[in-house]
Amino acid sequence: MTVTCDLTITLDGYAAGHRQTEQRPFGDDGGDGWGDRLHAWYGEGREEHPDEFDRMLTAKAFIMGRNMFGPVRGPWDRPWTGWWGDEPPYHGPVFVLTHHPREPQPMAGGTTFHFVTDGIEAAMDRAREAAGDGGISVHGGATTVNQYLAAGLIDELRLHVAPFTLGAGVRLFDGVPPLNLEQLDARSTPSVTHLRYRVLR
Amino acid sequence: MTVTCDLTITLDGYAAGHRQTEQRPFGDDGGDGWGDRLHAWYGEGREEHPDEFDRMLTAKAFIMGRNMFGPVRGPWDRPWTGWWGDEPPYHGPVFVLTHHPREPQPMAGGTTFHFVTDGIEAAMDRAREAAGDGGISVHGGATTVNQYLAAGLIDELRLHVAPFTLGAGVRLFDGVPPLNLEQLDARSTPSVTHLRYRVLR
Repeated sequence: MTVTCDLTITLDGYAAGHRQTEQRPFGDDGGDGWGDRLHAWYGEGREEHPDEFDRMLTAKAFIMGRNMFGPVRGPWDRPWTGWWGDEPPYHGPVFVLTHHPREPQPMAGGTTFHFVTDGIEAAMDRAREAAGDGGISVHGGATTVNQYLAAGLIDELRLHVAPFTLGAGVRLFDGVPPLNLEQLDARSTPSVTHLRYRVLR
Repeated sequence: MTVTCDLTITLDGYAAGHRQTEQRPFGDDGGDGWGDRLHAWYGEGREEHPDEFDRMLTAKAFIMGRNMFGPVRGPWDRPWTGWWGDEPPYHGPVFVLTHHPREPQPMAGGTTFHFVTDGIEAAMDRAREAAGDGGISVHGGATTVNQYLAAGLIDELRLHVAPFTLGAGVRLFDGVPPLNLEQLDARSTPSVTHLRYRVLR
């Protein structure tokens, strides 16, 4: 099975700003609403981005960092079931990396959030088991992606590059040892450039 | 006239390593020969990259930083006429930013290196005057490009993204305030991905 990573970044490599809050899930470095600007291509939908939407939805298991799941820090001291409403778009198991144990959280539409406290390799093992022959998507944010890249656990990197720079925030590749990649594809769409790479070992 | 910038960078945005020497013009962060790897697409020539070669050669005046011109630091205490042999590929005036005055250096084929000691705007004024209605190319390195981007003096940014990461060195966009860009083009070739942007004001 292939382990892919989809990440939307600015042209200078930032996937999120600092100081995330519930009101500003992408932090404040880019000002209010910059996360929407970064992800404007989601709003354009399948018609403009058929390959990208298809690829994202074919994964059978997902892994994400706790900050991508939500703004709660420390113990799970208040209800939080993700940014995506009652029916998240994953329709399968999502393994959330956290230091704080929590019971699995089933959602409508087949998504279940599982909380993994024993590290990125353990989360990958559980995702592999859940996905069977299907694909696994390391879904972000950048800190999580960087950890998996550094561990050599990503096969394919799909970057969606928004046409602006931010100058501060959480940056793809920070702390990752040098990587060799193979170019698979590059394509401009109205609001983003899709770049696809195979990570070479 | 349009002010363009062509810069070849790694996927994590580095255009050069630290500690440049005459033997290692791209510094040592990527090990020996990594500058060749970064610029492998030059070797593939016009056939693979017709638009890019055409565009680079149409400029009527060029601006570059002193480190792109050569490894000499401080006063011009030894002969140095660039990395490009007797007949550089510019065939026109090249304005080299430096703190140390030097007489113009004519070369075969119409290239003359002029040494500008009064800053980036003065160099741009001289390039505009020399180029007439023709284009101006801010030709690198990244430090020089960043200064011109920060000053709002680049119209079109042409990035040539090599499929590897470096993790250290001189990085595009470092110290540049946030920019808004318009996507013009994206294209994969065997050894590099060409991205072209208009810089919005």
